[in-house]
Amino acid sequence: MRILLTNDDGIYAPGIYALYEALKDDFDLEVVAPESEMSAVGHAITLTMPLRVQRIKRNGSFFGYAVNGTPADCVKIAVQELLEMPPDIILSGINRGANVGVNILYSGTVSAATEAAFLGFKSAAISLNTRKDPDFRFAAMFSKQIIRFIIENDLRKGTALNVNIPAVPPEEITGVSITRQGTARFKEFFDRRNDPRGNTYYWLSGESPMEDVNPDTDAVLLKENKITITPVRYDLTCDEELKRLKICTYPSIIL
Amino acid sequence: MRILLTNDDGIYAPGIYALYEALKDDFDLEVVAPESEMSAVGHAITLTMPLRVQRIKRNGSFFGYAVNGTPADCVKIAVQELLEMPPDIILSGINRGANVGVNILYSGTVSAATEAAFLGFKSAAISLNTRKDPDFRFAAMFSKQIIRFIIENDLRKGTALNVNIPAVPPEEITGVSITRQGTARFKEFFDRRNDPRGNTYYWLSGESPMEDVNPDTDAVLLKENKITITPVRYDLTCDEELKRLKICTYPSIIL
Repeated sequence: MRILLTNDDGIYAPGIYALYEALKDDFDLEVVAPESEMSAVGHAITLTMPLRVQRIKRNGSFFGYAVNGTPADCVKIAVQELLEMPPDIILSGINRGANVGVNILYSGTVSAATEAAFLGFKSAAISLNTRKDPDFRFAAMFSKQIIRFIIENDLRKGTALNVNIPAVPPEEITGVSITRQGTARFKEFFDRRNDPRGNTYYWLSGESPMEDVNPDTDAVLLKENKITITPVRYDLTCDEELKRLKICTYPSIIL
Repeated sequence: MRILLTNDDGIYAPGIYALYEALKDDFDLEVVAPESEMSAVGHAITLTMPLRVQRIKRNGSFFGYAVNGTPADCVKIAVQELLEMPPDIILSGINRGANVGVNILYSGTVSAATEAAFLGFKSAAISLNTRKDPDFRFAAMFSKQIIRFIIENDLRKGTALNVNIPAVPPEEITGVSITRQGTARFKEFFDRRNDPRGNTYYWLSGESPMEDVNPDTDAVLLKENKITITPVRYDLTCDEELKRLKICTYPSIIL
């Protein structure tokens, strides 16, 4: 089975290397990832700059392709240009930091997986819930279970799995939940500062999420040390609101 | 009523100016938009660089704030820092070029509106279906009908409207459709070239969409010269697949 690995922390990040090490004996792996960190790029693609591709070695042998673009760019150029055979599965990660709740809209890791889904591939994004001294070993090993889950259940075309793994010793993990994306807002503010020349600048700050009203959501369950798996799609239509608005008075075209 | 205008083509783009001109007599307008073009940035936010804000004049008087960030950054900093009073509605556009089908995942215009929805505001993204010599006059005028539609129907919290307007003379517009996002794939390829130093680079190319199987979708209806209005949400959960996977055998945690 052929698996394409990508991420948003960049090709030199330890998370993608842990994934590579855990899977290399059982699968044909290809790596196509951004040449530098691309966190919070969302589903950006590169249209105004040309993409360039470099062959990267790790530990003396060929590891994969580095692209001067976003995670979504990497998936596109991998399947269109770089790989000789289409992959059976595309995995994005392992990300340093959780991707839950509305956060996933900003996530390059998740966007690589939704891009893969949209191109017709089975895919998953895998994230570890810490940004500090991450130990990727359990998450990397668990990715094999994710691959099996995707294959055995024949994951539906157009859907990607968003997987989040608690950053606790494996024996403290309390279970696996198939759940939905939470939608609680983050408490955000801007930290306003002055540079040495007296000009104002702003840092986006404050990330502790506000409580989710629905306890059956990714952020809440992850906090309870559960592995969360959320099927995500690229169709943003709000079906409930569509149904309601369809029977309203439509805006009129006044010439 | 207070309306915040933003876009992804940048604060100097004619689309946002047309919107401003059409609405300025009836509403309290504020403009907070990227200082340069930010197309295809998706829902990116800026975390690694500080944001800076400039006051911009047009025609000799204050027009709005330019931010060195993405459309989502603009919405955040507008409501958190720059505006004295929260807006009643946030409008993003008018974009040069349609935002329909899977395209909307890459769209800064639509992401500004979903960011607004996620922050709890009523919002809409407005796009004109041409990239060549756009005439924004009808679309700008029609935005008043969109505002009315949002208010009269009390657009649901967490939903934004994605509006697309045909670029034909207004009398050729065949109606207004409340419809869903299409999910047909684009036919994409990479145009591989060599630079003068012999190094390979790639342009993402080819944008004609493959046919949508469902005729009641934004891309198909827009092609029939209908104005399309699609309610979009920021919850990416695929409910159908969630229901199915919940009753599958879950991946096991092997220690």
